[in-house]
Amino acid sequence: MCGIFGVYGVRDAAALTQLGLYSLQHRGQESAGIVAVDDARHARVSRAMGLVSEGFGDEEMDALRGPIAIGHTRYSTAGASAIENAQPILARVRRSHIALAHNGNLTNAVELRRDLEDGGAIFSSTMDSEAIVHRIARAHGATPEARVAEALQGVEGAYCLLIVLDDTVLVARDPHGWRPLVMGRLGDGWVFASETCALDIVGAVYEREVQPGEIIAVDAHGLRSVHALPPAPINRCVFEHVYFARPDSAVFSGSVDRSRRALGRQLARECPAPGADIVFAVPDSSNSAALGFADESGTSYELALIRNHYIGRTFIQPTQAGRDAKVKVKYNPVRELLEGKSVVMVDDSIVRGTTTRGLVSLVRGAGAREVHMRVSSAPIISPCYYGIDTPRREELIAAQMTHDELVRHLGVDSLGYLSIDGMLSAMPEGPDGYCHACFSGKYPTATPSEPELLRAGGGAGLSIGIA
Amino acid sequence: MCGIFGVYGVRDAAALTQLGLYSLQHRGQESAGIVAVDDARHARVSRAMGLVSEGFGDEEMDALRGPIAIGHTRYSTAGASAIENAQPILARVRRSHIALAHNGNLTNAVELRRDLEDGGAIFSSTMDSEAIVHRIARAHGATPEARVAEALQGVEGAYCLLIVLDDTVLVARDPHGWRPLVMGRLGDGWVFASETCALDIVGAVYEREVQPGEIIAVDAHGLRSVHALPPAPINRCVFEHVYFARPDSAVFSGSVDRSRRALGRQLARECPAPGADIVFAVPDSSNSAALGFADESGTSYELALIRNHYIGRTFIQPTQAGRDAKVKVKYNPVRELLEGKSVVMVDDSIVRGTTTRGLVSLVRGAGAREVHMRVSSAPIISPCYYGIDTPRREELIAAQMTHDELVRHLGVDSLGYLSIDGMLSAMPEGPDGYCHACFSGKYPTATPSEPELLRAGGGAGLSIGIA
Amino acid sequence: MCGIFGVYGVRDAAALTQLGLYSLQHRGQESAGIVAVDDARHARVSRAMGLVSEGFGDEEMDALRGPIAIGHTRYSTAGASAIENAQPILARVRRSHIALAHNGNLTNAVELRRDLEDGGAIFSSTMDSEAIVHRIARAHGATPEARVAEALQGVEGAYCLLIVLDDTVLVARDPHGWRPLVMGRLGDGWVFASETCALDIVGAVYEREVQPGEIIAVDAHGLRSVHALPPAPINRCVFEHVYFARPDSAVFSGSVDRSRRALGRQLARECPAPGADIVFAVPDSSNSAALGFADESGTSYELALIRNHYIGRTFIQPTQAGRDAKVKVKYNPVRELLEGKSVVMVDDSIVRGTTTRGLVSLVRGAGAREVHMRVSSAPIISPCYYGIDTPRREELIAAQMTHDELVRHLGVDSLGYLSIDGMLSAMPEGPDGYCHACFSGKYPTATPSEPELLRAGGGAGLSIGIA
Amino acid sequence: MCGIFGVYGVRDAAALTQLGLYSLQHRGQESAGIVAVDDARHARVSRAMGLVSEGFGDEEMDALRGPIAIGHTRYSTAGASAIENAQPILARVRRSHIALAHNGNLTNAVELRRDLEDGGAIFSSTMDSEAIVHRIARAHGATPEARVAEALQGVEGAYCLLIVLDDTVLVARDPHGWRPLVMGRLGDGWVFASETCALDIVGAVYEREVQPGEIIAVDAHGLRSVHALPPAPINRCVFEHVYFARPDSAVFSGSVDRSRRALGRQLARECPAPGADIVFAVPDSSNSAALGFADESGTSYELALIRNHYIGRTFIQPTQAGRDAKVKVKYNPVRELLEGKSVVMVDDSIVRGTTTRGLVSLVRGAGAREVHMRVSSAPIISPCYYGIDTPRREELIAAQMTHDELVRHLGVDSLGYLSIDGMLSAMPEGPDGYCHACFSGKYPTATPSEPELLRAGGGAGLSIGIA
Ligand SMILES: Nc1ncnc2c1ncn2[C@@H]1O[C@H](COP(=O)(O)OP(=O)(O)O)[C@@H](O)[C@H]1O
Ligand SMILES: Nc1ncnc2c1ncn2[C@@H]1O[C@H](COP(=O)(O)OP(=O)(O)O)[C@@H](O)[C@H]1O
Ligand SMILES: Nc1ncnc2c1ncn2[C@@H]1O[C@H](COP(=O)(O)OP(=O)(O)O)[C@@H](O)[C@H]1O
Ligand SMILES: Nc1ncnc2c1ncn2[C@@H]1O[C@H](COP(=O)(O)OP(=O)(O)O)[C@@H](O)[C@H]1O
Ligand code: SF4
Ligand code: SF4
Ligand code: SF4
Ligand code: SF4
Ligand SMILES: [Mg+2]
Ligand SMILES: [Mg+2]
Ligand SMILES: [Mg+2]
Ligand SMILES: [Mg+2]
Repeated sequence: MCGIFGVYGVRDAAALTQLGLYSLQHRGQESAGIVAVDDARHARVSRAMGLVSEGFGDEEMDALRGPIAIGHTRYSTAGASAIENAQPILARVRRSHIALAHNGNLTNAVELRRDLEDGGAIFSSTMDSEAIVHRIARAHGATPEARVAEALQGVEGAYCLLIVLDDTVLVARDPHGWRPLVMGRLGDGWVFASETCALDIVGAVYEREVQPGEIIAVDAHGLRSVHALPPAPINRCVFEHVYFARPDSAVFSGSVDRSRRALGRQLARECPAPGADIVFAVPDSSNSAALGFADESGTSYELALIRNHYIGRTFIQPTQAGRDAKVKVKYNPVRELLEGKSVVMVDDSIVRGTTTRGLVSLVRGAGAREVHMRVSSAPIISPCYYGIDTPRREELIAAQMTHDELVRHLGVDSLGYLSIDGMLSAMPEGPDGYCHACFSGKYPTATPSEPELLRAGGGAGLSIGIA
Repeated sequence: MCGIFGVYGVRDAAALTQLGLYSLQHRGQESAGIVAVDDARHARVSRAMGLVSEGFGDEEMDALRGPIAIGHTRYSTAGASAIENAQPILARVRRSHIALAHNGNLTNAVELRRDLEDGGAIFSSTMDSEAIVHRIARAHGATPEARVAEALQGVEGAYCLLIVLDDTVLVARDPHGWRPLVMGRLGDGWVFASETCALDIVGAVYEREVQPGEIIAVDAHGLRSVHALPPAPINRCVFEHVYFARPDSAVFSGSVDRSRRALGRQLARECPAPGADIVFAVPDSSNSAALGFADESGTSYELALIRNHYIGRTFIQPTQAGRDAKVKVKYNPVRELLEGKSVVMVDDSIVRGTTTRGLVSLVRGAGAREVHMRVSSAPIISPCYYGIDTPRREELIAAQMTHDELVRHLGVDSLGYLSIDGMLSAMPEGPDGYCHACFSGKYPTATPSEPELLRAGGGAGLSIGIA
Repeated sequence: MCGIFGVYGVRDAAALTQLGLYSLQHRGQESAGIVAVDDARHARVSRAMGLVSEGFGDEEMDALRGPIAIGHTRYSTAGASAIENAQPILARVRRSHIALAHNGNLTNAVELRRDLEDGGAIFSSTMDSEAIVHRIARAHGATPEARVAEALQGVEGAYCLLIVLDDTVLVARDPHGWRPLVMGRLGDGWVFASETCALDIVGAVYEREVQPGEIIAVDAHGLRSVHALPPAPINRCVFEHVYFARPDSAVFSGSVDRSRRALGRQLARECPAPGADIVFAVPDSSNSAALGFADESGTSYELALIRNHYIGRTFIQPTQAGRDAKVKVKYNPVRELLEGKSVVMVDDSIVRGTTTRGLVSLVRGAGAREVHMRVSSAPIISPCYYGIDTPRREELIAAQMTHDELVRHLGVDSLGYLSIDGMLSAMPEGPDGYCHACFSGKYPTATPSEPELLRAGGGAGLSIGIA
Repeated sequence: MCGIFGVYGVRDAAALTQLGLYSLQHRGQESAGIVAVDDARHARVSRAMGLVSEGFGDEEMDALRGPIAIGHTRYSTAGASAIENAQPILARVRRSHIALAHNGNLTNAVELRRDLEDGGAIFSSTMDSEAIVHRIARAHGATPEARVAEALQGVEGAYCLLIVLDDTVLVARDPHGWRPLVMGRLGDGWVFASETCALDIVGAVYEREVQPGEIIAVDAHGLRSVHALPPAPINRCVFEHVYFARPDSAVFSGSVDRSRRALGRQLARECPAPGADIVFAVPDSSNSAALGFADESGTSYELALIRNHYIGRTFIQPTQAGRDAKVKVKYNPVRELLEGKSVVMVDDSIVRGTTTRGLVSLVRGAGAREVHMRVSSAPIISPCYYGIDTPRREELIAAQMTHDELVRHLGVDSLGYLSIDGMLSAMPEGPDGYCHACFSGKYPTATPSEPELLRAGGGAGLSIGIA
């Protein structure tokens, strides 16, 4: 998963982009980058491993001049973790430059790469996104948007793209619409972002979603929208509402905070925990859902788990802390609230189950008498090929165990998941038009032919490692 | 303010100490340090600026061997911010070593330092704590605890101390008891910490508070407690409950989560906001209080402000973000919850007022119709001399403005503070035995003769700056 | 200028390459990189700004496994200084990988790049070398050497190349032979390097020069040499002998120490300084020449200038040191040897003249009565387009001033340069077959059409800056 | 060994001190520090591990304001290598500050420390120098110089001290005069330094040596010199001339370059190598001596070993390079000069013998037929207790082997050392008044009672390690 942000036509576009990336940091913490283009059409890039707050000093920001900028925060999905794989990509094409930032995952990256390589293209990263840059370089359309449209024919899978071609900013969203992308106005300029929270932070006024299949071009001639890609059924990612997006955002036009509340209420209806004394969240992604569960069930909402503010990415696991060290340092139980109680612990999802297991043992250690686990989504049983980094099936705990085995494995007194229908019914615009492949196993498109190669960035045959 | 943690008689004491410091990180993020003493009585120290998670790599931890360790996280109060002022202090005294970690502030540091300097002592830091080390070096008592007791005669102000003298661990708490200090058992060994959350994380069993005026010594001969300091009225810091301590801790034997709930309920009684649609916290320190307000008032509790997880200490203020940049990046309003609403915003305290002002403007910008500010403590009107880094009176907004001026300055529709009595009534063990000097201006002891010198670490006459 | 080093068929090829790069560090200190290919044909790269000794830790070296490796140390000539421009380049081509390290400069880089861009190629760096990678990717020859030969048709200018294509190591030297390249044997394997000193350090046995116009391929089938490029007159760079190469190397089959001695002797003959008391070098590049001058003239050789060992690349100019700070800190005069003396100061070349001016003032300040400057090469009056980073003509002091002006400007009592003929006569293999364009202004080939663009790495039209 | 530098009464004294430390870097590369005192008598310190060029950025230098500064470069002798042991020491004493920089080693540090600890002093480092600070703090003299004189009574061993007490700069040299110390004038101010090369670099005019046993005070009242220490025989360190000092310095009033030339000539007389073809130095410390040997013997001087400029302190030993890796990377033989020759290799001294052994094998590997080793000092057979970091006797190769064993061990055809008398005869001011204990085993004073404790910084009983 990644966050993307772009600006056209506002002074100091890079500084705004930095600000936007701060608010999209939850979408990726592995690396961050900004490309800015100045009035003399000179493009500059700064990329760094780590957080936005670490990567851009005064010197970098001063260099990133001009009224056009795009930025990217990366959460490694396809391609190894290395500075070579940080985005935006900046390259020269046809006597000009191209910059590209991509959120999503292409399902035919292996095939695209092979075709391009057979045509003599060289690849300098292991990212699937690089194939799109090559295709744009080879497209011959009369306008920038025509070139992008041409390049995207035959590109399958999930993509939200921000592109700068010379001094045109281009935006594209795949016809299925897996990932969110919005646009807003800031003075005379335009702002594009993965989530509305990034518009808010720069003071831009929300205009609308970029539509599935839409390509937008903005330049000195104004804004143009084209729908040149073959139409497809809509498959918004339900997981954006469940976990990924920030609660202060609207994604797919619906408030995330409200959808999580609704998920929590639905969960209380589907899987009540009648005798429980208190309900609490695994902070912070489940706060809204737990509040919804508490509302609906009438059980008292407590802050029984504290999340340590200071556990950074570079957390060094203390040797003495043992097996559950990371969980113990990250989450701290409030003994006074738990001791002797029958409790409902709400989390948004369970992937490998290790965190949940650690939390249950923590909560029992702090005196909880009964632990009733409630999950505000359905069991995850299949990998995602559309841009979210879920592991292989073998590592998905719900794909490996029966309900009873899971109850024993997690050490809970009871375990309740939302049904797929219940989950979809909580979506702000109704249950239709959502992807739920990772929950149902029903993929809305053909799945990749060589998923492991895809994971490695779409490299075919010999792969390139980055030391 | 600082956090201290110590271990006696447990294998890999330094690793436990690192873990303990992780959970005391909220008490100080400026620097961290650990001293360990091995079986051959060899003492080693590692100190670094910044967070615990940044300071101690594998190499450092491997070197810190032995069954005795003390650690410290520092929040600069007295003495400049520099590696020279990181604790624990480690020094040689009388053919042995001494290590010392201090939470609190001495009110007669200037006088102590002058006396020692007149006696030929040299000071290599600007910390008031160094004076205690000198006094222990000059004390002649027959036992370690007698030496510490002798050294502490005449030392005024707030201190919780962890000391290693040769292979004895010593613990001392000033007779007024401003700062919290607890002890626990871990196997055959002992653990000491500022807050109980640090006992929990290492799996130690809470034993009791270290008492005001108590000195404890633990060594191969066992644990000894002495009460050799002149008795004094108890003055626990009410601010520990209001803001400083972590909600999963018990301080002064009372649960912080429970006291904050009670503060919030009392606030709802004293300063109701009848027509309000929702109540929300400034996360995370005010979560419990806001929940208490919601309970008592029957107003619906919402998560209307999101706190960015990724704003580290090294946050670089983006140039475009303008005046309220830091607030805007740290806190993000949920427009869906605020738009058109009359809202109650609960925070634990207001110091300079800049954050509050920024938040009010943020919340209004997200559409709130009316903003009713509620504060779960009394107005702060006086500086603290007992270990909390409140600024001078001139910077305390509530000391500079009338209530009406404050309402206008903050831009709120109404503003309600708790009364001092109301605040004290919410304390777990009743209203007595608490310091409230920063709220009432009534200092329980003589105030420092030269507060500015004290701020600079008790240096007299010429001061030493650290470049 | 750059240094390149490659290994085929020796265990731990990357460790040998690191060692080789240590001894080629004088050819470039801006960045260093190594690509290694393991037995499973997996290619890995590590690149870093700065010195070889700074860039490769244990972790990096452990990852660079396998019996094939090539390395590069870079001294920025074409393309901005940035990690994006560090070599070796590693890319995927035609379902395999390609790695390339380049020493030299292409004179038609702008045209090559334009053609490739028109054919849809994208460029991710501003280095001219990237064009060669693209051309290899597009070549269709049956063997690796055929592909490289095809790719190099039409490539003009100076190049020594080390290439890995899948599991074949390829080596190429342009038909003019500007830059040196040698090969040696190490056990059953092969080693290639810019200078023989790098063969020595790894214990390889010198075999021969790679010949101008030669392409060599080594793989499991053995070593093959082809001469498939159009023949051209030989133009070895005389500056390699004068200044660039290390005195313990043989370049173009001749000993550098011996050629510099001969330059010094010839200088004594052409520009004697009859009344001088002592002769000394500007250490260390002129040591051999100064010794030659002393021999021939019978003047006593002294170590009158000391070169500070500890002035690293990151030297921070002390504010008080004033105008000549860098010179003063780097070179220190020995007063006892200079006081009251008439002295001959020998340096290998004068470029901008600032160092020489600083040295003259230093030497006078230490008491020298007369300063006779002697230069063991001819005046530099024209820029180099073949891989050495001489500045534009306007900055070349000898191109801007008459001899008399120069004497006054440098502040010397007399100034003697070698004649071009004298300089060439000192070359080990006689005066023919050498380039001397920077001294004579006679370029052996067409000069670049757009030299400034070339400097920027051959980018055409809009250029890409790297922040 | 260490370098010290101080300024009184010149604007931007710290910037001059930085410059002076650059030129004293060869006396210590482990850490560097500067203390500056401004007109408001505010003292500031900056200390860092590593080189002067790495430690002081613009920010640090800007903070170090004022007309008084002292600086130090450290080469670990007594006390572990750690930032806690970097100098200058800065401390508060008697309502003022003291800063101290020390070159030398105290022979009764253990006893001094014990006495002070018994008197209640605490030590925060493991350096012997800290004892002097304590003694000054306890002295009661009426003037600063009287206090320093009082403090130094009973302090035995080697010291050159730069001290700032309030706004007086004090300078002291022990009565034996082991280490060099000079003074110069710069405008109206004064400059003090270990070697004259540091006066030269700041443009100060050499005034004279600070005399053995002299204490100098400079302040607003002018410069005062006192001779208040018990007189003692003079024991200048002969090793300063042999190896330690820089050739462009005068130490003990004699030119180092001239003394090394004389050592080389004497060596040629005492240990000729009649049939040799060439003579060369192990660069750079032996350049002058090798030139002297060549002069005297008439053998041709060649630059047969090249010293790599880029081997920094952080050199990572390449795994493939094997046993002699460090030597091979640091020194490179010139095959053309060595092949088939009988050669004389001159070095200034042999300590452990590992470098020499490596060099001999390198030189033979490059084809030398016979290797005649000549050393421009006598065999080192005893440790130094006066400030130079020679190892214990067991590690001194000349103390462990007979001449014949040594010849075999080093792999040379012949080995010639200077005699002690011959070495002393080459000293500029005649053979008397020099310490030669490490060569002769005749210590001019009582040796330390507990040398190992001394090594650890004079700590008694339990020592403090610094992790
Ligand atoms: N301060 C916050 N409050 C509530 N939800 C948050 C907050 N910050 C991020 N989120 C949401 O939570 C997700 C991160 O989940 P969180 O529980 O905070 O961490 P984790 O990934 O460890 O579960 C984000 O993708 C976003 O949806
Ligand atoms: N995860 C948490 N949840 C609730 N309270 C917390 C948490 N972490 C720290 N605290 C409490 O909040 C205080 C820090 O306040 P907080 O609002 O998080 O930051 P700030 O200092 O910016 O107000 C701590 O001293 C502690 O009392
Ligand atoms: N140790 C050495 N002794 C003699 N020549 C050297 C040495 N190291 C490098 N060189 C040669 O000197 C050149 C570097 O010149 P040098 O004078 O040392 O530095 P600068 O580039 O500052 O002039 C190298 O390219 C090489 O030819
Ligand atoms: N550039 C130089 N030329 C000659 N002698 C030097 C130079 N720099 C330092 N020295 C002298 O050489 C000593 C360092 O010896 P050197 O041979 O350069 O290194 P090493 O310590 O490796 O032997 C210094 O203490 C000084 O006396
Ligand atoms: S598979 Fe799951 S995570 Fe992936 S897009 Fe579909 S709903 Fe979202
Ligand atoms: S003055 Fe305030 S902050 Fe300080 S100890 Fe008293 S109550 Fe606590
Ligand atoms: S122009 Fe000069 S530097 Fe360049 S290749 Fe020719 S001789 Fe060498
Ligand atoms: S023992 Fe040797 S090194 Fe030490 S002072 Fe005496 S001569 Fe110098
Ligand atoms: Mg979560
Ligand atoms: Mg807060
Ligand atoms: Mg040079
Ligand atoms: Mg040497």
